[in-house]
Amino acid sequence: MKISAVKKLFVGSPLATAQARHERLSKASALAVFSSDALSSVAYATEEVLLVLVVAGTVALGYSIPIGIAIVVLIAVVVSSYRQTILAYPMGGGAYIVTKDNLGTLPGLVAAGALLIDYVLTVAVSVAAGVAAITSAFPVLYDYRILLGVLFVAGVATGNLRGLRESSALFAVPTYLFVVSFAAMLAYGFVRWLAGWEPPPPPEVAVEMTQSLTLFLVLRAFASGCAALTGVEAVSDGVPAFRAPEARNARIVLTWLGVILIALFMGITFLARHFHVVPRMEETVVSQLARQIFGGGLLYYEIQVVTMLILIFAANTAFADFPRLAYFLARDGFIPRQFGTRGDRLVFSNGILILGGLAALLILLFGGATHALIPLYAVGVFVSFTLSQASMVRRWLSRREAGWWWRWALNAVGAVTTGIVMLVIAGTKFSHGAWMVVLLIPILVAVFLMTRRHYADVARQLSLDQFPGAPPIDHTVLVLVGDLHRGVVTALRYAQTLSSSAKAVYVELDPDRTHKLEEKWGKFGLGVPLVVLTSPYRSLLAPFLDYVDHLVALGENHVVTIVIPEFVPSRWWQHLLHNQTALLIKGALLFRKGIVVVDVPFHLR
Amino acid sequence: MKISAVKKLFVGSPLATAQARHERLSKASALAVFSSDALSSVAYATEEVLLVLVVAGTVALGYSIPIGIAIVVLIAVVVSSYRQTILAYPMGGGAYIVTKDNLGTLPGLVAAGALLIDYVLTVAVSVAAGVAAITSAFPVLYDYRILLGVLFVAGVATGNLRGLRESSALFAVPTYLFVVSFAAMLAYGFVRWLAGWEPPPPPEVAVEMTQSLTLFLVLRAFASGCAALTGVEAVSDGVPAFRAPEARNARIVLTWLGVILIALFMGITFLARHFHVVPRMEETVVSQLARQIFGGGLLYYEIQVVTMLILIFAANTAFADFPRLAYFLARDGFIPRQFGTRGDRLVFSNGILILGGLAALLILLFGGATHALIPLYAVGVFVSFTLSQASMVRRWLSRREAGWWWRWALNAVGAVTTGIVMLVIAGTKFSHGAWMVVLLIPILVAVFLMTRRHYADVARQLSLDQFPGAPPIDHTVLVLVGDLHRGVVTALRYAQTLSSSAKAVYVELDPDRTHKLEEKWGKFGLGVPLVVLTSPYRSLLAPFLDYVDHLVALGENHVVTIVIPEFVPSRWWQHLLHNQTALLIKGALLFRKGIVVVDVPFHLR
Repeated sequence: MKISAVKKLFVGSPLATAQARHERLSKASALAVFSSDALSSVAYATEEVLLVLVVAGTVALGYSIPIGIAIVVLIAVVVSSYRQTILAYPMGGGAYIVTKDNLGTLPGLVAAGALLIDYVLTVAVSVAAGVAAITSAFPVLYDYRILLGVLFVAGVATGNLRGLRESSALFAVPTYLFVVSFAAMLAYGFVRWLAGWEPPPPPEVAVEMTQSLTLFLVLRAFASGCAALTGVEAVSDGVPAFRAPEARNARIVLTWLGVILIALFMGITFLARHFHVVPRMEETVVSQLARQIFGGGLLYYEIQVVTMLILIFAANTAFADFPRLAYFLARDGFIPRQFGTRGDRLVFSNGILILGGLAALLILLFGGATHALIPLYAVGVFVSFTLSQASMVRRWLSRREAGWWWRWALNAVGAVTTGIVMLVIAGTKFSHGAWMVVLLIPILVAVFLMTRRHYADVARQLSLDQFPGAPPIDHTVLVLVGDLHRGVVTALRYAQTLSSSAKAVYVELDPDRTHKLEEKWGKFGLGVPLVVLTSPYRSLLAPFLDYVDHLVALGENHVVTIVIPEFVPSRWWQHLLHNQTALLIKGALLFRKGIVVVDVPFHLR
Repeated sequence: MKISAVKKLFVGSPLATAQARHERLSKASALAVFSSDALSSVAYATEEVLLVLVVAGTVALGYSIPIGIAIVVLIAVVVSSYRQTILAYPMGGGAYIVTKDNLGTLPGLVAAGALLIDYVLTVAVSVAAGVAAITSAFPVLYDYRILLGVLFVAGVATGNLRGLRESSALFAVPTYLFVVSFAAMLAYGFVRWLAGWEPPPPPEVAVEMTQSLTLFLVLRAFASGCAALTGVEAVSDGVPAFRAPEARNARIVLTWLGVILIALFMGITFLARHFHVVPRMEETVVSQLARQIFGGGLLYYEIQVVTMLILIFAANTAFADFPRLAYFLARDGFIPRQFGTRGDRLVFSNGILILGGLAALLILLFGGATHALIPLYAVGVFVSFTLSQASMVRRWLSRREAGWWWRWALNAVGAVTTGIVMLVIAGTKFSHGAWMVVLLIPILVAVFLMTRRHYADVARQLSLDQFPGAPPIDHTVLVLVGDLHRGVVTALRYAQTLSSSAKAVYVELDPDRTHKLEEKWGKFGLGVPLVVLTSPYRSLLAPFLDYVDHLVALGENHVVTIVIPEFVPSRWWQHLLHNQTALLIKGALLFRKGIVVVDVPFHLR
């Protein structure tokens, strides 16, 4: 059993159901666990704003300050809005559940589709940005950025297939290291600024101005910067993981998160402007900034490594979120049922594998470039923000609990603001890739609905109500042979066990070989009659299928069992060397009624 | 039968054996068919030389002229060497066959491995360069270059799966169009040069000089330019396709090919120098040259389109060569047998699919960049050149036919020259990717040898000599059930046909469900006894496997048939929604002896 040994090496031994553990998190631990996604986005958000502005020349980069302030206001609005969600959903309020509860199934599925896309992009964008942090520090790795990205995704996926049980302790290291390191870097940067230390003059190479600075361009820069908000909802999804009083602690942690996020994002945006950082393909803005502040050296490398670490951890959070959402969708019958079953390590293996595969594919297709993925990213995030806040608005209105008015107002501001931002992002980024997401969300919703309809339909077809009963079967057993050897003899013996009137069928491609086969058959054929079919088109299949069709048509309850001798090699790679014909035949017979195919294995040493 | 309908749409209807046609080519047609690979390489060869030199600054570009002359001498040597091969192998002398004949199996397999790699790279490099021709003319497509490359590969593969029967007429258009267009462009360029028209001054932006001009760098530039020689051997491989006298006509065509290749390559190299063309990422050298000579306009676009066309046709030739070589290797038992069988369109479908898949993968992994693939390309080509010429040297020496001395000398010069060039390429390009090929060739040879050993071993195991005969079987039939519905009832009825003592087995994950199942069973279970197994780890598999192992161990000739009810959906996508558990079980049972798995289909509407 080689496959299981390999699986054990990478994934570990099976865990019993009783080992499923529900860890409760202190506020400090929860901040570490739930903030890596949100905080890590400061590693690329400023850069994305500058990247859009720079096409209008270096002077346009000054607009990053007002844009940054607008994004900070947006963060404050979204955070206060989600503080209300926590109160209403102490069991955890993911956008799918909240929306489905309050606005109905269809909007819920839109949120689910947006979230699934969002999780895949979280992995792709975070890993791409993490790789960029490393290749900025070690340019020799730049050519290997796609490979590195795919390896990081594979690594995180493998970790999750094992079930990362030590998560909260593990998370504390990179998150707090990141916060402390960035805070220190920014503080030192501001001190130098206030001390009057002059940054080097702007780079000599004038940036080519290819567009003029329009309102559209400023809005697009703002839309790119909104990537800073991704992950803010994580706290409200995870309320049950907090120590009691859960809701209160979660609200406190969310506020901390908002404050830290705003401080880091604005710090980087201001200093990048002050130090004349111009976005470049090969080096990130954060790397340029750290280099200017620390002047290279160990502290610079520390910043890059810590950035990479928190980004990888941010990718990791999606590996918990995606399978959990898939579980809810599978439970409701909107996606295949196997997403609803835990693997033997108590994790949802299918969701992890699909997420990892899709994220790796995106990194390959987009050349591992963060900025190419960003236009796809923010749309989905803001679709789920908007639907989630709108659901809360509806909820307060219909329940009118004590103090509802104030909470309703906060969520209404949140819903309207994120809704407008969603439209701005979709509009300004449409041609840059947002169209894919705008197209994909309805496709996903259609797939969800089709899947549920299919399952309902199958359940009806399988129902035993008004079942007339299964009539007895007329049975014919055929052995398909291409030669006569030990494997075939084994199959003949087995076929005789199934039916005393079993027949062998041979498709003739070359009359000389038929003659030789018939000679051998007399000696070793166990007395099973041999039917020879001729073939004008060198096709094994066509004459055989005709013959089988003829047999099946003999009666209403006629079943033809086709026995195929199959080799089972002792090593996995040897599978490639055998049984291709058997596979072809099985494929061709799959959709025909009244046919059962039986592979009789012949084990090779 | 939806799959076959889709296949028919893309691939066409089956063809009878009698439709296999052997077209005999006139010299003009043969030149068109066999030269596209060789001639198309002038679209990138000069650029590759310049790309290496430019790291030593713009001045170093002047070295392209002596390097170009060295490559021309090399072309002349290789062409005269292959003219001798044609005489000796009028039935077609591919490097694998020629080397295996004269130097033995192992060198033959080295040549085969080198050729297989070479064919994959021919597709990847040609398509990447073809896409570059188009994106040079239409820069808006530059961002889609990877996608375009993959689509081109898919298109050519699909064409070949159909069997391009009208090939020679189809080839004449792009090949002659290319030769005439390029000849005209170069002639016009030289006329302007002679007429004293001054090219624009070299570009202002000084190229950063990152390395000094060493002998190593010049050799590396030469190695890159050797990509111009790829495809020269095609004529000698295809001698039997010529009209009689085959050998004489083939030698004439090969000489024509050499002359045209030299003229185009030197023309481009000289003019690129004269017009101060500096290689750039976004625009090919040929495009820059055409733009300078024609000053944009229709003729410029014609050059780009024709370049793209001939490169796609060059990729197409590998789709004939790779499957043919695979056929020879399969016939000799070195690779899986299915490469030796023609599909129903008389083409070797497996080889075409694998070649297309690998080439598309290379384009994805190397970001669709020609220059990144070139270091991998030339090594394999020159390995097969060298082995092929060395084989001829050995052949003349051992046969000593009339006039052998002169031919021996020509092949010896060819073998030594290409051998030295092979070492130069492997040495100067090693760290840029040639190491992969140097590593891959021995791996492929090992795979070839392991495959042949495996097939020989299997043949021994299957032999009926000293076969003791198959003993009668003790048979147990089990139906694995997870529920009771119409599909399960159908499977129970079938199992009763196989054995009157068939039993059903159910793995209990939740005692409540067991209870419900047992109630239903009394009513619809057809009297088949139900065995319930408990499971502590929520695993379906482990308890069931234990039970089966126990049964199999009951006797030497005990066979357990496991009947699994399986859904056959009416639409292909619905497969994703069913039978995942059945698949898992089949995988787990695959390597166990004494077990036969039978899927009983239940056809969904």
